[in-house]
Amino acid sequence: MSLDWEARFSPYGRRATASEIRELLKILDRPGIISFAGGIPDPTFFPTALIAEAHRRVLEDPARAGASLQYSISEGFPPLREWLAGHMRAKGVACGIDNILITTGSQQGIYLTGRLLLSPGDGVLTARPTYLGVLQAFTGNEPRYGALSALTGEAPVDAKFAYAMPDFANPTGESIPPAERTALVSGAHAHDVVLLEDAAYSDLRYSGAPRPSLLALDLERRGSIEDTRVIYTGTFSKTIIPGLRVGWVVAPTPVIRKLVLLKQASDLHTSTLTQMVLAEVAARLRQSHLAMLCENYGARCDTMLRALALHMPPGVTWTTPEGGMFIWVTLPEGLDGAQLLAEAIELGVAFVPGAAFFAGDRKRNTLRLNFSLCDPDTIREGIARLGQLVARKTQQS
Amino acid sequence: MSLDWEARFSPYGRRATASEIRELLKILDRPGIISFAGGIPDPTFFPTALIAEAHRRVLEDPARAGASLQYSISEGFPPLREWLAGHMRAKGVACGIDNILITTGSQQGIYLTGRLLLSPGDGVLTARPTYLGVLQAFTGNEPRYGALSALTGEAPVDAKFAYAMPDFANPTGESIPPAERTALVSGAHAHDVVLLEDAAYSDLRYSGAPRPSLLALDLERRGSIEDTRVIYTGTFSKTIIPGLRVGWVVAPTPVIRKLVLLKQASDLHTSTLTQMVLAEVAARLRQSHLAMLCENYGARCDTMLRALALHMPPGVTWTTPEGGMFIWVTLPEGLDGAQLLAEAIELGVAFVPGAAFFAGDRKRNTLRLNFSLCDPDTIREGIARLGQLVARKTQQS
Repeated sequence: MSLDWEARFSPYGRRATASEIRELLKILDRPGIISFAGGIPDPTFFPTALIAEAHRRVLEDPARAGASLQYSISEGFPPLREWLAGHMRAKGVACGIDNILITTGSQQGIYLTGRLLLSPGDGVLTARPTYLGVLQAFTGNEPRYGALSALTGEAPVDAKFAYAMPDFANPTGESIPPAERTALVSGAHAHDVVLLEDAAYSDLRYSGAPRPSLLALDLERRGSIEDTRVIYTGTFSKTIIPGLRVGWVVAPTPVIRKLVLLKQASDLHTSTLTQMVLAEVAARLRQSHLAMLCENYGARCDTMLRALALHMPPGVTWTTPEGGMFIWVTLPEGLDGAQLLAEAIELGVAFVPGAAFFAGDRKRNTLRLNFSLCDPDTIREGIARLGQLVARKTQQS
Repeated sequence: MSLDWEARFSPYGRRATASEIRELLKILDRPGIISFAGGIPDPTFFPTALIAEAHRRVLEDPARAGASLQYSISEGFPPLREWLAGHMRAKGVACGIDNILITTGSQQGIYLTGRLLLSPGDGVLTARPTYLGVLQAFTGNEPRYGALSALTGEAPVDAKFAYAMPDFANPTGESIPPAERTALVSGAHAHDVVLLEDAAYSDLRYSGAPRPSLLALDLERRGSIEDTRVIYTGTFSKTIIPGLRVGWVVAPTPVIRKLVLLKQASDLHTSTLTQMVLAEVAARLRQSHLAMLCENYGARCDTMLRALALHMPPGVTWTTPEGGMFIWVTLPEGLDGAQLLAEAIELGVAFVPGAAFFAGDRKRNTLRLNFSLCDPDTIREGIARLGQLVARKTQQS
């Protein structure tokens, strides 16, 4: 007889349940399905040759090969942190390598920030809906969730920090307008709340003018990175490649020093070789690579927006992103994204029901559509099928 | 003015403090120091050419390159898990890929097991001294520590699990004798305690006959992996390379399923490319590589043992490992390893004071010596210097 493991798990262990999305993605990997479900980049755009070359360069250099396969410091490979400090400075964030921690994807930066700041019952403010990975990352800390909008209100706010994805948010694709960014930073000061800024998609802008990060705004206000209240997470997953799992955190040094310890306890350090390779690739990757990504993803976004306008029945609305990977669709009240998915899969189309992205008070009549993975023709075909299905359901209801 | 971050940290965040060892390692990286401090393999033995070739093979294969740089499942790359299932079967552990989770180093397996099982105040049994990374990994869960030996005693045991490194333990180099392994497994059943088995050094055996893992013993007793109470962690860090950060957990499927969710929340997945590369390397690496490692490390172990016998004054004792990377030295009562280190560094020799490896009740008259990194001549020179210092201190005290 096997053990009653459930009885042995910690409350966190018991509470952890499978992400609907990730379970979905496994099913939807089937060939023949038009998938708008994943939040994943198109691998045909990966700078594969450059990455292969960087691996060769590091592994065939006698002066570097040994070190690239050896244990290294938890803080991260110093030249990569140097490059990132320059990258951040170009975004209006003056910082040094002691303000930067390399993480195993930005998911780890978010997870460790939760561990560093949250005790059970502590408040966390998020947009509604919000990035599902954040809800997963914080589950172990048993926070109470509040609305990000509370930060700009008059009422007292009881929260340790507010999580925000100011550019092209997952899942809505929406960005926070400039004036609201300033208000969020002011609100964070007024209510004495820390900001956790997730910049995962920031560099994927297809239209409109770039907007300052919350960290840049706070730094401008405070004068020094050491005096800001923003913990910023970045990633190479969207602009270079996701599979190597490299992200970073930018924060005042007391925060970085503690995050280093928490990272050390959880996985010692991120792959040395991978960090060395990304330092090479980041330095050699031309601006034209990002321009190519933005051109292609931007065209796909436009294609999907046009197809939605063509095929969706009245009563269906959607967001109009200026970048990122997602469009958020709101169906007429009474329709349920999860039920719709079951029928859509029959028609060979997949997406993520929007309910998954809410900590509570789920809006079930919503969908998240990804436009970065499929080519324009496939997008048109998939949205046509989906539009016909929604039209039929709308008539029925 | 900067924020009072300390006041905002969670109790775990406040409690997390720098590992003496890891801080030491930074200082001791200075050229010219003979370092017995790290627990690190000799990079001259890395199968670098094979690793470079595997990267080329994967990244230059159009059928695999894209997938190797893309997001992948949290469970780990299936062919690598297949290989590991075969590897485990060869060690008397019949299991399938659903019993295996790939982790970012075995440190992550240990960390996630702590998150899965421990609530504040729960008991954990460990050897005394024990692996420092375990104490760091569990800090966030606020366990009470008890002695591993309690498991084979009559008195009631109040513990969620017992952590053991049966082969060539870090930091002592000692192994658990066969009869005691059986007794530990029986004790775990009698006291209804889970076993967390850390097999990090198991394949580095230089003398003596291989001994069954606790998992193999429990499986033999129970008949199926699904019915065992052992969570087993393995790693490529000691036998192939540490820098790529790949380890694995073997356990009954209900445990693996939950660990997958906890891993997903903490870093989504381990680098896809790295897993593909290690699947290639593990399959192609000849038994002769391990034999070469064992021959060289075994010779270094012998060299250090002989040098200790030659240079240490009476009253100093040490362990005689059959494998692994460490020898544990006990000085006469009254001497302090940390004080000795300060003087040893002046003489150009470094080690880790033993006190770091105790959860409480620290034995300060102990040292951990690593013999895997330095060549035999350097070992002789370093131990000669250390022996003279200890002899001088012994006469003074």
